[in-house]
Amino acid sequence: MDLIHIDDPQDPRVAAYLDIRERDLVGRHGRFVAEGKVVLDVLLSAGRFAAESVLVLENRLAGLDETLRKAPADLPVYVASGEIIDRIAGFHMHRGILAIGSRGPSQSAGALLETLPANALVVVLVGIANHDNMGSIFRNAAAFGASAVLLDATCCDPLYRKAIRVSVGAALNVPFASFDDTTGFIATLDRLGFSQVALSPHGEADIRDAKRTDRLALYLGTEGEGLPESLLARLKTVRIDMAQGFDSLNVAAASAIALHHFSRC
Amino acid sequence: MDLIHIDDPQDPRVAAYLDIRERDLVGRHGRFVAEGKVVLDVLLSAGRFAAESVLVLENRLAGLDETLRKAPADLPVYVASGEIIDRIAGFHMHRGILAIGSRGPSQSAGALLETLPANALVVVLVGIANHDNMGSIFRNAAAFGASAVLLDATCCDPLYRKAIRVSVGAALNVPFASFDDTTGFIATLDRLGFSQVALSPHGEADIRDAKRTDRLALYLGTEGEGLPESLLARLKTVRIDMAQGFDSLNVAAASAIALHHFSRC
Repeated sequence: MDLIHIDDPQDPRVAAYLDIRERDLVGRHGRFVAEGKVVLDVLLSAGRFAAESVLVLENRLAGLDETLRKAPADLPVYVASGEIIDRIAGFHMHRGILAIGSRGPSQSAGALLETLPANALVVVLVGIANHDNMGSIFRNAAAFGASAVLLDATCCDPLYRKAIRVSVGAALNVPFASFDDTTGFIATLDRLGFSQVALSPHGEADIRDAKRTDRLALYLGTEGEGLPESLLARLKTVRIDMAQGFDSLNVAAASAIALHHFSRC
Repeated sequence: MDLIHIDDPQDPRVAAYLDIRERDLVGRHGRFVAEGKVVLDVLLSAGRFAAESVLVLENRLAGLDETLRKAPADLPVYVASGEIIDRIAGFHMHRGILAIGSRGPSQSAGALLETLPANALVVVLVGIANHDNMGSIFRNAAAFGASAVLLDATCCDPLYRKAIRVSVGAALNVPFASFDDTTGFIATLDRLGFSQVALSPHGEADIRDAKRTDRLALYLGTEGEGLPESLLARLKTVRIDMAQGFDSLNVAAASAIALHHFSRC
């Protein structure tokens, strides 16, 4: 393991960790930040994204031994005191475990769909713009064995720091890809034999009566506006029945119910 | 409606709104803060808690007409400019709609259980210390028609500002009460004819096979430690099956799945 002690917050080797929160807002040009032990463990185990470096609070290093053994031998592991880490990050990093990951080349939704097995549950997200919801949906997708998450162009970034954290690393594990052309995307799913089901408060069937097919795509939209009517008109729709006067669950809660229902786990 | 314009952030009539965030931490001696239009609407409609006053940004007043019509005629409605509201609250209040509610006398868990109908689903929370989870569980409890939420002494406060907000007002609507003596509490539920089911990663039955009884109590614990073994040993336990390698959902997501399963909505 390549342990490097950092004493100067301006050291160019830790430049990618500078001003974490401000950088969250402007993006990181092909990189993302993973934080916390569990997320770091997923980053290093899943192998879907390459880790570029790790930055650890000196008194957290001992507890990371098993996790860091999963890293390539040449991965730089920067170690610093609490004071230096806080000055690098620009705020108090009580977790004290950070990593920079590389996004690598992005895959098209179509290309990702072509790689899926005969038995596949995929999640299609339309307009999910809240990072908490995005992270929670990924966590649920992983828990219930979804093969992929497909995102329309109005969704937020699953590799935003908070989304990764809320997903407990699932955003680094469950394959995802974006699509622009919804019509073409629906046609691709059709061609690949996916039945396509949208969750909607006014869905035509109770989800309890909806059958899982070998290949199934589950569409989820935002809580407020829901999925666009033009989309709903082209898909089977299912609803989650609620108490009188209620017509909306949090979308992450709805994803848990629907993914559990359709899961073969 | 009793409209009162406030020009001075130190006006004693709005003292209960001073330094909102700092007060969140120390508690409010029998009061709570409700924020946002939807939450205010629930506070005034549900009638479970009395509103003491409302504080509204002047340009939000027009949109609140219908909501404020649900308030008692003598409820003071304080109106202020953005600058004054921000100085009262101590931070930028972009929502611009606040209310102070009165907790009133608290009811014991036993007394609350005595009031429930023959058909009742209740949620029992043990060690839920995160306000996001607390709020989400209340939202799900309301969505699926739960009659009450019962909290052990280690749970956080459902009337904490953020918990109310995340619950979208459900914390002001779904009756709740706390209990100290878990053994006595279990005995009370027994006597009242509740079957008692605990959600646990290693539960003996798949939740899909668990039957709803007329009176059912669903126990939920924290994600990390789960419910104490001593408790699990005395209850029926059910699990939510997940993909290999996963053994924990977010407790709010788990509550959504379990409440939907047991709901008669």
